[in-house]
Amino acid sequence: MADEALFQFLHNEVIQYIYKSAEYGEMENGRCITKLENMGFRVGQGLIERFTKDTARFKDELDVMKFICKDFWTSVFKKQIDNLRTNHQGIYVLQDNKFRLLTQLSAGKQYLEHAPKYLAFTCGLVRGGLSNLGVKSIVTAEVSVMPACKFQVMIQKM
Amino acid sequence: MADEALFQFLHNEVIQYIYKSAEYGEMENGRCITKLENMGFRVGQGLIERFTKDTARFKDELDVMKFICKDFWTSVFKKQIDNLRTNHQGIYVLQDNKFRLLTQLSAGKQYLEHAPKYLAFTCGLVRGGLSNLGVKSIVTAEVSVMPACKFQVMIQKM
Repeated sequence: MADEALFQFLHNEVIQYIYKSAEYGEMENGRCITKLENMGFRVGQGLIERFTKDTARFKDELDVMKFICKDFWTSVFKKQIDNLRTNHQGIYVLQDNKFRLLTQLSAGKQYLEHAPKYLAFTCGLVRGGLSNLGVKSIVTAEVSVMPACKFQVMIQKM
Repeated sequence: MADEALFQFLHNEVIQYIYKSAEYGEMENGRCITKLENMGFRVGQGLIERFTKDTARFKDELDVMKFICKDFWTSVFKKQIDNLRTNHQGIYVLQDNKFRLLTQLSAGKQYLEHAPKYLAFTCGLVRGGLSNLGVKSIVTAEVSVMPACKFQVMIQKM
């Protein structure tokens, strides 16, 4: 519980900080999102190295995705992804019905517009993790009813 | 292990980010330290609320300090403070012989000058924690041989 809180509070501070420095400068919303995403990317790269240190080699792309949904997600967010779907053509949808970084926000529609800034870091985290496993991707997130959330991973064939 | 890594990587990113934005702007080193310290302060405030939710009331200032050295430190850094000293006049020195946020740096003298930026957040963390327990303080840190580190807490009598 303590660890989660530490990550969550620090994550909030980072969002605050980036958005606050944007107010004073010329940075638009889009650039804040990009910065958060980039931070997540590098953290994801680092984490996946630690996590996969002793795991067996992955069979294929789906195997990698399952690892992200189970082990990776559990380590970071203390629960697994609730649902993984794929069109078998390089698109994966990871659904988390109670995404930890959103549970602190009120579930009403009122704060829906603020959701993207709480998801950007995690999009980067997934992209960074996949990247260090040799899978290049684009990751986006979507919320319709908080705190549920869908991450869409589009694999970039190389 | 995973959690520590998550915090550590994110902490590093925050340092990088703040120092990088300073390069482009007019921010001096001192202001970066202050920003990190302030972030730590708010995170410390949040954490101590969670941690002390179910603890008994503290007897006195020393009791509070012991809680910081044991429970608080263990939650955040996975070990206790190795040594706590006080002059019984409001100054406490907390020594950590293997401070987690420094163990990633090479132990040589070479990186000693970079130590302050890895300590600022934690100084704030302690100050914020104490503050929400009703103890106003000034917290500074000092490194002579990495990764050992001393935090000096000066209580501000109100």
